[in-house]
Amino acid sequence: MIASRQEALALDRDDPLAHLRERFELPDGVVYLDGNSLGALPRATPACLEEVVKREWGQGLIGSWNEAGWAQLPARIGDKIATLVGANPGELVVADSTSVNVYKALSAALVMALAKRPQRRRILSERHNFPTDLYIAESLARQYGCELVLADVPEQIPEMLEQGGIAVMMLTHVNYRTGRLHDMAALNRQARREGVLTLWDLAHSAGAVPVDLNGDDADFAVGCGYKYLNGGPGAPAFVWVHGRHADTCRQPLSGWFGHAEPFAFTPSYAPAPGSSRFLCGTPAVLAMAALECGVDTVLAAGGMHGLRRKSLALTRLFIELVEAHCGEHGLELVTPRDEALRGSQVCLAYADNAYPVMQALIAHGVVGDFRAPDILRFGFTPLYTRYVDVWDAVQELARVLDSGSWRQARYHRKGAVT
Amino acid sequence: MIASRQEALALDRDDPLAHLRERFELPDGVVYLDGNSLGALPRATPACLEEVVKREWGQGLIGSWNEAGWAQLPARIGDKIATLVGANPGELVVADSTSVNVYKALSAALVMALAKRPQRRRILSERHNFPTDLYIAESLARQYGCELVLADVPEQIPEMLEQGGIAVMMLTHVNYRTGRLHDMAALNRQARREGVLTLWDLAHSAGAVPVDLNGDDADFAVGCGYKYLNGGPGAPAFVWVHGRHADTCRQPLSGWFGHAEPFAFTPSYAPAPGSSRFLCGTPAVLAMAALECGVDTVLAAGGMHGLRRKSLALTRLFIELVEAHCGEHGLELVTPRDEALRGSQVCLAYADNAYPVMQALIAHGVVGDFRAPDILRFGFTPLYTRYVDVWDAVQELARVLDSGSWRQARYHRKGAVT
Repeated sequence: MIASRQEALALDRDDPLAHLRERFELPDGVVYLDGNSLGALPRATPACLEEVVKREWGQGLIGSWNEAGWAQLPARIGDKIATLVGANPGELVVADSTSVNVYKALSAALVMALAKRPQRRRILSERHNFPTDLYIAESLARQYGCELVLADVPEQIPEMLEQGGIAVMMLTHVNYRTGRLHDMAALNRQARREGVLTLWDLAHSAGAVPVDLNGDDADFAVGCGYKYLNGGPGAPAFVWVHGRHADTCRQPLSGWFGHAEPFAFTPSYAPAPGSSRFLCGTPAVLAMAALECGVDTVLAAGGMHGLRRKSLALTRLFIELVEAHCGEHGLELVTPRDEALRGSQVCLAYADNAYPVMQALIAHGVVGDFRAPDILRFGFTPLYTRYVDVWDAVQELARVLDSGSWRQARYHRKGAVT
Repeated sequence: MIASRQEALALDRDDPLAHLRERFELPDGVVYLDGNSLGALPRATPACLEEVVKREWGQGLIGSWNEAGWAQLPARIGDKIATLVGANPGELVVADSTSVNVYKALSAALVMALAKRPQRRRILSERHNFPTDLYIAESLARQYGCELVLADVPEQIPEMLEQGGIAVMMLTHVNYRTGRLHDMAALNRQARREGVLTLWDLAHSAGAVPVDLNGDDADFAVGCGYKYLNGGPGAPAFVWVHGRHADTCRQPLSGWFGHAEPFAFTPSYAPAPGSSRFLCGTPAVLAMAALECGVDTVLAAGGMHGLRRKSLALTRLFIELVEAHCGEHGLELVTPRDEALRGSQVCLAYADNAYPVMQALIAHGVVGDFRAPDILRFGFTPLYTRYVDVWDAVQELARVLDSGSWRQARYHRKGAVT
């Protein structure tokens, strides 16, 4: 552990990835620890968007679908993201939102599982999975006469798999509230033994922790473009399917861009070969252009392993400093101490007062977020978070807690998007 | 009819909407008659996007969900589009793609219809409807054990409604290939008498022709943001539900933004009141910002009736001039001569040679598009199309046909996105 701000600055000087921060526009006077909710703006994005808007759209007009390669964006950006999550070229496409992609992938998995073993009618997930995943699973469970069964804690998952009756296991790799990381390889191994198909939500993983979808033998995956991939608010999401299913699985959002011949205008649907069948409507070109700039910032790190090393160093330091400087305030570490189980965030529970404490922190320029009911969540995007940011954030947290400034009424406004 | 380019210029001088063209960036030397495929770039869009990207995202970061009103974009832009299609405030939201919204709305309609009259298992549409609508209907028909029945020509629809067994009638208001406009009021009246729910795709209507969803008593509608609404390539789409269904219908893409309390993170789905339940994932903020600029260009016309008058004047003039100047080439007018049945485009069939003719036209700066197998399609966006553009386009068409220049091999390349 370090004992001073100077030591934190020294760590930054020695950081081989420190230069990557130059690729981002970050506001002055802010320690941004919420890149797991909305990634920061890459410096390249405004000019890139301007080019797409003014030249490709404004001057090229409809011709840009061919000439500027708009029609290839879902696959081209997909291939870039593929390198971050252990997928092969052609297996991953960018499309729609994470929620919509959960629907597509879970439908495809369910239909496939039910065709093979119609008596198995359970979708296994976690009670503390990100709600949108559960909402979509609920909807599909109703449609297909299935049941959504939820593990209360991750440790229950292996025994629930063993108990049988599971068609599909749908998990989020890194939990949004706790930052806990599943052992994807082990769970997939068990699932495969039990004949269970797997769907992984990589919202808090892609660009944050190493993922090896093929190496770990997953079946389906989806992920988010606006968190660690820095694609901008509401950026398009992605969806991946293992090569063994790509040409046989069917997803119900059978729009024209997922058709084998989108511009033949045939009245009957025939899915495109491979993962392109997971496309639906016309690709969101402007949003995809911004996403590509974001993905490029991650590719610039030269591999996920350096990012992972720095991410763990940041979260480790944060935990140590919180314990050293805020130890007496009863914060509870929710994120696993075991680094093999930790994503790129640290969550602290603070009973009834997490909300006003986070509001006070934000007012003092340290931006994390609050997750109901009691979580202070701090994300550490290794691309642009410095060791000195960790130091400053903990000092501010200590000041807010020591002074009790969070008790001021203005920090208690509720009901806002956080 | 006019007899010279000068007379066309005079029509432009007298056009009360001529000033609206100043709101667009259009390339020099191009007559753009493809705004029904991709609307032109509004002059306001680049600066607006830059503001959203650099200030709201770059500086405001996650806080912009509240402070910049990002969370309200789907409803705020929806309310603006509502004024163009006869919808009330709060009834229409912007979300996802048209294809995804067809899925939501058709699911909602089907579930509602099947609950009331389970013996009726037909979805009625047209063989020449835009394919993505049919692909989605095919998918839902399979899911719900229904049958998709298709009228070969619009005139068959009333008798097919009479024959019974129809749960939902799904039509595109203005046909993409012919420009033919349905009589929405009459078809909805008949559908209601027969107990059939209606879903209208307004892709080629919103911003192009007057639409009165409430006045004409529709049940559901969807529409496209990148055609006459000028929202940019792949812009978000919209979905509308009549107030009588808004609080009771269910759609299966139950993502967190359609939840009654998205940020309560409750594990179980409860739909938001009203049309917000048609939202799914996180709104595509950058794309929505561009869409809002596009919608504003249409609102600047001060109502759809002036736009409709000009649109009909443009299409009428085009038809007259084609007949006068290209009469001997055997072009067949596919779009109805009856103006009550005409959208804002004119389509000409040209047997086996529509593709190379359109390529030759585009090479000479007149941009329409080709629709398989034999259609030359010309869209007339009244916001930025001038009478002189109509004159110039027809002169170029006559030159291409008279000279036979389209016979050159370079115009015969196939397989591209057109």
